Amino acid sequence: MTDLPPDLPGYGALRPYRPAGVTRGPRMTKLLADLDAAISACDLRDGATVSFHHHLRNGDAVLNMVMAALARRGLKDLHVAASSLFPVHAPLVEHIRNGTVSRISAAFISGPVGEAISTGVLPLPAVLMTHGGRARALDAGDIVIDAAFVAAPVADEMGNVSGSMGATACGTLGYPMTDVAVARRTVAITDTLVPYPAPAIDIPQGQVDHVVQVPRIGDPSGIASGTTRPAEDPVSLAIADSAARTIAASGLLNDGFSFQTGAGGASLATAAAVGRQMASTGVTGSFCSGGITGFHVEMLRAGLFRGLLDVQCFDLEAVRSYRDDPRHQAMSAATYAAPHIGGAVVDRVDAVVLGAAEVDLEFNVNVTTRAGGVLIGGSGGHADTAAGAQLSIVTTRLTAAGFAKIVPQVGTLTTPGPTIDVVVTEAGLAVNPARTELAERLHSAGLRVRPIEDLAREAATAARQPVPPRAGGRVVAISEYRDGSVTDLVRQIGTD
Amino acid sequence: MTDLPPDLPGYGALRPYRPAGVTRGPRMTKLLADLDAAISACDLRDGATVSFHHHLRNGDAVLNMVMAALARRGLKDLHVAASSLFPVHAPLVEHIRNGTVSRISAAFISGPVGEAISTGVLPLPAVLMTHGGRARALDAGDIVIDAAFVAAPVADEMGNVSGSMGATACGTLGYPMTDVAVARRTVAITDTLVPYPAPAIDIPQGQVDHVVQVPRIGDPSGIASGTTRPAEDPVSLAIADSAARTIAASGLLNDGFSFQTGAGGASLATAAAVGRQMASTGVTGSFCSGGITGFHVEMLRAGLFRGLLDVQCFDLEAVRSYRDDPRHQAMSAATYAAPHIGGAVVDRVDAVVLGAAEVDLEFNVNVTTRAGGVLIGGSGGHADTAAGAQLSIVTTRLTAAGFAKIVPQVGTLTTPGPTIDVVVTEAGLAVNPARTELAERLHSAGLRVRPIEDLAREAATAARQPVPPRAGGRVVAISEYRDGSVTDLVRQIGTD
Repeated sequence: MTDLPPDLPGYGALRPYRPAGVTRGPRMTKLLADLDAAISACDLRDGATVSFHHHLRNGDAVLNMVMAALARRGLKDLHVAASSLFPVHAPLVEHIRNGTVSRISAAFISGPVGEAISTGVLPLPAVLMTHGGRARALDAGDIVIDAAFVAAPVADEMGNVSGSMGATACGTLGYPMTDVAVARRTVAITDTLVPYPAPAIDIPQGQVDHVVQVPRIGDPSGIASGTTRPAEDPVSLAIADSAARTIAASGLLNDGFSFQTGAGGASLATAAAVGRQMASTGVTGSFCSGGITGFHVEMLRAGLFRGLLDVQCFDLEAVRSYRDDPRHQAMSAATYAAPHIGGAVVDRVDAVVLGAAEVDLEFNVNVTTRAGGVLIGGSGGHADTAAGAQLSIVTTRLTAAGFAKIVPQVGTLTTPGPTIDVVVTEAGLAVNPARTELAERLHSAGLRVRPIEDLAREAATAARQPVPPRAGGRVVAISEYRDGSVTDLVRQIGTD
Repeated sequence: MTDLPPDLPGYGALRPYRPAGVTRGPRMTKLLADLDAAISACDLRDGATVSFHHHLRNGDAVLNMVMAALARRGLKDLHVAASSLFPVHAPLVEHIRNGTVSRISAAFISGPVGEAISTGVLPLPAVLMTHGGRARALDAGDIVIDAAFVAAPVADEMGNVSGSMGATACGTLGYPMTDVAVARRTVAITDTLVPYPAPAIDIPQGQVDHVVQVPRIGDPSGIASGTTRPAEDPVSLAIADSAARTIAASGLLNDGFSFQTGAGGASLATAAAVGRQMASTGVTGSFCSGGITGFHVEMLRAGLFRGLLDVQCFDLEAVRSYRDDPRHQAMSAATYAAPHIGGAVVDRVDAVVLGAAEVDLEFNVNVTTRAGGVLIGGSGGHADTAAGAQLSIVTTRLTAAGFAKIVPQVGTLTTPGPTIDVVVTEAGLAVNPARTELAERLHSAGLRVRPIEDLAREAATAARQPVPPRAGGRVVAISEYRDGSVTDLVRQIGTD
C-alpha cells in the first residue's frame, strides 16, 4: 500500500485504512435473551418515542408487553406512536395515569384508550393522523422513532421478518414497513423463531437491530375483529345498491376499474353489488386496495380484479391469500397513502366507499368522535382515500343509536368536505355541489339525488336525541390532515 | 370546525387546514413522453450525480442512452455513480473526454472505461467502493444521488418495477433498491410497460418519481456475461478440490452451512465439489448468497440448501428461479453487504470462495488492477464477504498471462489481508498466520499447507514476466474500503 496524501482534488480528505485484527466465529446473531435485553440495547430514556403497528388488531399482545416492560423500568413521559390502538390496548390507560406515557399519536384510537383520552387523562393532546399523514410525518422527521417494536409472526435471528406464516400470521406488514425505514432502533418480537434465513421476507434484516422471542405475540382470532362479511339487512342492502348504482352511473366502471372499501358489512355489501354489476357487464377491474378481506380475495379469484394491493389483512382468509397468491401484493403505509411521495396507491383508486359517524352540510365527515364528543376512532385511511380517489362515496344511515348522522356541523372534522363526492343514505343520496356533472349523471341514471339539507332535516326528524353540543373542556386530541395541517380539535368531555 | 389556538403544549404551532378545491380525474400517471421529459422533470444541473445499476451487466443499454441524452443537453461535470461498469459502457469514455462527466464512482469498473481512467482521461479520481461501502455511503449521505435511473424490465405507469418479467428480465434488483431509497429523484426506464399495478413488484411506486418507455433497455444475452458453469480443466479442478477440502476440514460444513461463491468457473467448480461433499455426508445447508447462478439454483433444487439470498442474478436460469421459486429471495445491496446496518447477510456467511488478480505475502488481495496497473475491476462484494464470512478462501493459480499472482506486494490493495483466511493454489495452500487453529485443522486433514512465501517463490519462478513496478503517474482512482477509509490509490499508467 502506498503512502496516502492528506487529500485529493474532488475527493477531499483521505482517511487511511487501518489494518485491524479480524474475529472469526461464532456466527453473528441479533437474538437477545428477552424483551428487557432488547429495551436495554435500545437505550431508551424518559421522553422517548416508541412505535407499534396494528396488524394483529384487537389480538395484539406486543404493545402491552413492551409498555409493561418500559413501565417496570420506571421510564416516564414516553410517546406511544402507534399506527392504531384497539380495545385490547386498555392497559395503556394505567401507563398514562402513572406517568409512563404522556404522549400518544395514532391514526385510529378505539376502546378504553380513546375514552380515557376524552376524559382528560393524557397530559398532552393526542395527535390523530391519517395513515398517509403518519408516513409523511415519519419521513419528514416530524416524528422521530427511538425504537420501533415489530410484532413479527415469523422472524429469524438476524431480523428477517415474515407476516404470512407462523401461529400468529397476520399477512402483510404495511405499517411497520414505514416505521422501520426511519426508526433509530427496531426490535422484532416473535413467537415463531425460524432458522436463518426466514422464508417470505416482508421486512429485511437490514432494517432490524434486535430480535426477541416471546411465548405469544397475540391472538390470531383478534385479527378479524369486526365483521368482514357483507351486511344482509334490508337497509344496508338498499344503501349498498344505491352506492353501486352511483359507481356504475359515474362512468368509472370500465375495464381497469380500481376499488377500495372498508371492511365493514355495509361497505362489503356495496362491494358485492359492484361485483355483481361487473360480472354482468363483463368489466374486469385492475385492483382492490387498502385493508383486504376474504371478500376481496373472492373477487380476485372470481376474476373481477387482476390484483390486490394490501397494506393490512383484515381476516385470516386474506392472510392465506397473501401467502399463496402472487397477485395479492403488500404495500407499505407510505406507498398506500402518503401525500408526499408524488403518487400513492390511493391516487390511483377510482372509487372508494367509506363510512361515517357524522356527515355535515359541507360534506365534512367525522370518523373521530361519536355524538357527545368521545374519541372513538380517527381517519385511518379515510381522508387519504377520499382525497386520492376519483369518486369518494360515504355510505351512512340517517341515524344511529338515536342520533342523527347527517348533521348541521360535524362534531369533529376528520375528512374535509371538498374530498367527499357523494353521501348515500337509505333516504336517497346527496352530491357535493362542486360535482355538478356527477349530479347530472346520477340523476339521469334514476338515482334519488337530494340536497344534503333535506337528508339532514329527515335525519333530525328521525332522531330520538338532539345533536349534543361540542364538548367544551381543554384540548385532548388534535386531528391532523394528511399534510400535517390541523382540521379540528377534540376537547375533554364532562367538564360542563 | 372550531377556531384553532396558535399553539398547544407538547405540540407547538398549529397550522390550520385550509379547504381547497379538489380536482377529479384523469387518473394520475408518472409516465412521461420520453427520456428527455424525465430528465427535464429531474431538473439536473451541471455537477449533478446520476446513478445506475448493473443488473443487465454487459447487456445494459440504459446508462448509455441516459448519458447520451444528458450530453445532448450540454450538461457538464456530471458524477456517474454506478454500481458497476462493464465493457458495454465504452461510450462513457467520450462523455468523459468532452466534459459531460468528470466524476465516476462504482464498485467495479471493467473494459474501456477502466482503461481510459488508467490513462488519465478523467479529471478527478474515480472512487472505487465495495458493494456494501457504496450502500453505506448512500445511507450516510456521502453520495447524494440527484437522479437514479432504474433499468426496469417491467414497470407500470405509477412506477412499480419488477425485475423478473418482460423481454429483458434480469431477476432481483438488489442494487437499485438501495439507490432509490435515498435518491432525490428516481426514473424507471422500461421496455415493458404493463397495466397498473405491475405484478411481482421489486421496487414500489412510492420510490419512483417518473416512468419512461423506451424500445429496449438492453440485451438479455448480456446478463450472463462471463461463464456461469463450473470449470472443468484439471488445474481448476485440483484447486476446487483443495478449496472444498479446506471448507470440510474447517469444521464449518455442518447442517445450516452457508456459502457464497463468485460466478467464475473456478468458484463454481469449488461449489460443485462442496456440493458433492454435502450430498455424500448428508449435510443440509441454510443458504447461498451473493450473485446467483443457475448452478446455485441447481444446488437449491437438489436440497443442498434451504434458500438463496440474491442481490443479482448472474444468468437467465437464476432469473427464472427468482420468478418462480419463493425460496429464492431478493436482498438489497445494503442488506447483502453494508457494514453500517449492524448485521448484513455477509455477516452470516460461513464460507466464501473468492478470486484474485494478485495476493501478497500479507494476504492482501488485489482485484482492482492487473499487472502493470490498468484498472480492471474493483471489490464489488469481495472485501465485504471477506470481512463478514467465517472463512474466506481465495482460489488462484500461481500465474496468469505469464505474471506471478502470488507477489511480494499487491499492485493495488483491494481486500485487506487480515480478512483473508486461506489462499488455495494448484501448488498447495497458505493459511493466514493469524489463524493458527485453522492451519492445524487443515494440516491434520492432509491438506498441503505451505508458507505463502513458498507459494510466492514458486509463482515467481513459474512466471515468464517480472512483476511490473507500480504506475507512477497522478492518482486516477481511489480504492475505498467498506467503511470509507482508503486502502490504496490507482495511478496513471504510461507516464514513466
